[in-house]
Amino acid sequence: MNSHPLDQAIALDTLAPGRYGGHTDPAWANMVGPFGGITAATALNAILQHADRLGEPVAFTVNFCSALADGDFEVEAQAVRTNRSTQHWAVSIEQGGETVLTATALTATRRETWGAQELRPPQVLSPAGLGKPQMAALVEWVKRYDLRFAEGPIPRVWDGEGENSRTTVWVRDEPPRPLDFASLTALCDVFYPRVWRRRATRVPAGTVSMTVYFHAGSAELAAVGDGWLIGQAEASAFRNGYFDQRAQVWSQAGALLATTHQVVYYKE
Amino acid sequence: MNSHPLDQAIALDTLAPGRYGGHTDPAWANMVGPFGGITAATALNAILQHADRLGEPVAFTVNFCSALADGDFEVEAQAVRTNRSTQHWAVSIEQGGETVLTATALTATRRETWGAQELRPPQVLSPAGLGKPQMAALVEWVKRYDLRFAEGPIPRVWDGEGENSRTTVWVRDEPPRPLDFASLTALCDVFYPRVWRRRATRVPAGTVSMTVYFHAGSAELAAVGDGWLIGQAEASAFRNGYFDQRAQVWSQAGALLATTHQVVYYKE
Repeated sequence: MNSHPLDQAIALDTLAPGRYGGHTDPAWANMVGPFGGITAATALNAILQHADRLGEPVAFTVNFCSALADGDFEVEAQAVRTNRSTQHWAVSIEQGGETVLTATALTATRRETWGAQELRPPQVLSPAGLGKPQMAALVEWVKRYDLRFAEGPIPRVWDGEGENSRTTVWVRDEPPRPLDFASLTALCDVFYPRVWRRRATRVPAGTVSMTVYFHAGSAELAAVGDGWLIGQAEASAFRNGYFDQRAQVWSQAGALLATTHQVVYYKE
Repeated sequence: MNSHPLDQAIALDTLAPGRYGGHTDPAWANMVGPFGGITAATALNAILQHADRLGEPVAFTVNFCSALADGDFEVEAQAVRTNRSTQHWAVSIEQGGETVLTATALTATRRETWGAQELRPPQVLSPAGLGKPQMAALVEWVKRYDLRFAEGPIPRVWDGEGENSRTTVWVRDEPPRPLDFASLTALCDVFYPRVWRRRATRVPAGTVSMTVYFHAGSAELAAVGDGWLIGQAEASAFRNGYFDQRAQVWSQAGALLATTHQVVYYKE
């Protein structure tokens, strides 16, 4: 068994075709329950492990119906439609007979076509030049990443004096781990709540729905290896208890690997 | 019965709690099957009509598993989790025993909180100043909208000389209709394929997954009435058969009503 903390956390036992058992991992604890990114990666892993899978993930949407309780859970993954080169999936996670997560995914066999990348990575100092944040992790899962903030680090002073919602950050797994769809999915949720940045006020906040579009296949992800990625995240609007976050993740070489969006509940 | 073409197209007959019958409408025909936006609006409508619904749509993701065939279809909408102020939905559309669409949604009762809008609308000429495009609609559904392009109209000459993927366009229902969640959902899919713009080449393309985040409640949408909306859409990357589209829709007064994303299949 691979002993990397990410692989341990997303590990699933096959109970029946399309049914898996998993359990939360204290190494990935958030304030309440586990880090949403690792739960999303676990849900994707149920598809990745499925014997009937066709192709690789292209789009993945996960809805957090409630905080997972620490302990065991069951994952169900079902191919609801299989076409010639695409497949649509429905995934759910249950705890104690209650649905705690729903997800849908598109997997596809991709072939080479004309291509173009319009969105370029931000130009910032190198990870080494930026160095590690001089502040203790607020929650356990943050220690599973090496984060080097170029812009918009988590506020040190909660003085209500935020200006915008943007964060630009180098990130890689800690310890380093070769990139794949599961780890990229978790990484897409690595940005702390935009409302904290915008307001410099630590209000309760939690992701309720997250979508990831994968712009690279497994070979391209493998080629990135355990190198640095650069991510940028920003909100469009905060309104009546919910805000959105749009984010992009590039390789250090500048290839756009994923675009990701989420809607986040906040209080006050 | 409301006789607006949009209401006719999304109309559903209740067959049983959570089960509805609908049928495609030639007024909304696309190249193959109906316009994806109207199908998405129909799927959302199953939730909006559901007796058990709590609150209003906040997030909605729809996956197009295959093109709908012209004719009847059945919609199933199920509340998979109901919390105090939020509810998670699973929706599917079937034709001839096959799943042709899956969707998930979050509805919620929203209350007033601190808020801020970061993303401002583009500054462009007025709809009257821009005027209607001097070109026939390629497909029937386009006639259901009044579109006034400020930037990136559908190419008139397919000469392979596109430069970027951005379109900025004023839009409203034709004939005008008071805005609501269903019509806003359909509007989120009004942008023609970004690959056509980027390449000025008309390759086969079709949306496979679309997400809409609603930044306004029903009262705010009703206040917009049948006024103009302005939308902007752009791709981040085109690669090996799939590209993404990120888009925003504002009211003429500048309120961000929806942010929306989709991943689109393309050929060649």
